[in-house]
Amino acid sequence: MKQAIQVTVDIVVFTIRDEALQILLVKRGVAPFLGRFALPGGFVRDDESLEQAAQRELLEETGTKNIYLEQLFSFGDLGRDPRGRVVTVAYYALIPSDRAPLVAGTDAAEAKWFSVESLPILAFDHRRIVDYALSRLRGKLEYTTVGFELLARKFTLSDLQHLYEVILNRPLDKRNFRRKIEAQKVLKPLKEWQRTGRKPARLYSFKTT
Amino acid sequence: MKQAIQVTVDIVVFTIRDEALQILLVKRGVAPFLGRFALPGGFVRDDESLEQAAQRELLEETGTKNIYLEQLFSFGDLGRDPRGRVVTVAYYALIPSDRAPLVAGTDAAEAKWFSVESLPILAFDHRRIVDYALSRLRGKLEYTTVGFELLARKFTLSDLQHLYEVILNRPLDKRNFRRKIEAQKVLKPLKEWQRTGRKPARLYSFKTT
Repeated sequence: MKQAIQVTVDIVVFTIRDEALQILLVKRGVAPFLGRFALPGGFVRDDESLEQAAQRELLEETGTKNIYLEQLFSFGDLGRDPRGRVVTVAYYALIPSDRAPLVAGTDAAEAKWFSVESLPILAFDHRRIVDYALSRLRGKLEYTTVGFELLARKFTLSDLQHLYEVILNRPLDKRNFRRKIEAQKVLKPLKEWQRTGRKPARLYSFKTT
Repeated sequence: MKQAIQVTVDIVVFTIRDEALQILLVKRGVAPFLGRFALPGGFVRDDESLEQAAQRELLEETGTKNIYLEQLFSFGDLGRDPRGRVVTVAYYALIPSDRAPLVAGTDAAEAKWFSVESLPILAFDHRRIVDYALSRLRGKLEYTTVGFELLARKFTLSDLQHLYEVILNRPLDKRNFRRKIEAQKVLKPLKEWQRTGRKPARLYSFKTT
């Protein structure tokens, strides 16, 4: 029981900004990978659970709490961190588009949102973690309503379809999409309309049951 | 970076025995939880990846290798191990029914197969890990062919249906089941028949593409 392993958490924080699926990256102010962008995260403290560590980092780096957070996978290959043996427990978080902070919290030297379609070169094995998170998010979109966590509290059906298109990175047939969403029976039509487009579009919210 | 966290792997080893979904448990020969059954597992060595640690434990405890192994989830709550702060990376493995060892390897004091429907009280938070593994396996049965990893190399359609029924713990309609499997286009009919039942049943194998 003389292990030299350290444990960290890293978080892929997704949101929708500028009509694109984006993630939050933090520029490293120290070696290794000085000046490279990395996922928000850090070492797990002895007195907090893995989930608590992820929640704490999320709050420190984005100022947000009470958002969707799910454990993804643990990465523990030898040599993934030049400082020594580090196992990271990766999470992903979904911040609704109307709650995404413009800038990051106090903890981060420089934090920026990047579209998943145009990421910079990342520190450590963080690109692999991002790819894993994208794959999980896209997979879950097929059989859960998890993607809805990225939407504002009130939205149009076009907003919802656009969300799916942005995450899946492909256009969807409007009629098929609406039929599929209808079958899930999770939407509550509101007595409000969005009047920014050519014609008023009904607003919806989620049934909270 | 003065962490007191240790990292282990634990493995839920599934197989089909005596027409039931069973898992391998090892009776603990040391404190804590002396005499209680626990999942096979152990501390990750500094010179092996998480996956390598899981493969090594699997070989030591069951004598099997080259079987399906998938990372499940990492459990890191405070107090889950009375020896101190231990984060465990849980895996599950699927041993084909014709390859399940009767007894365990040399490493284990006493190892036994238990039906998931009648488990003893487990050490640590291992019951929670087993429940998580069962939930993942049942969920994946719906949209993947992962369950097939538990079958012998040649099997009848009845064997296959029985496998699903045993994992899901409920009877399935024969016609619907066969239609669903047919649609997956993964079975290869063999020119062999099983002649143990009332009438000969065709044997199948999986298409290896």
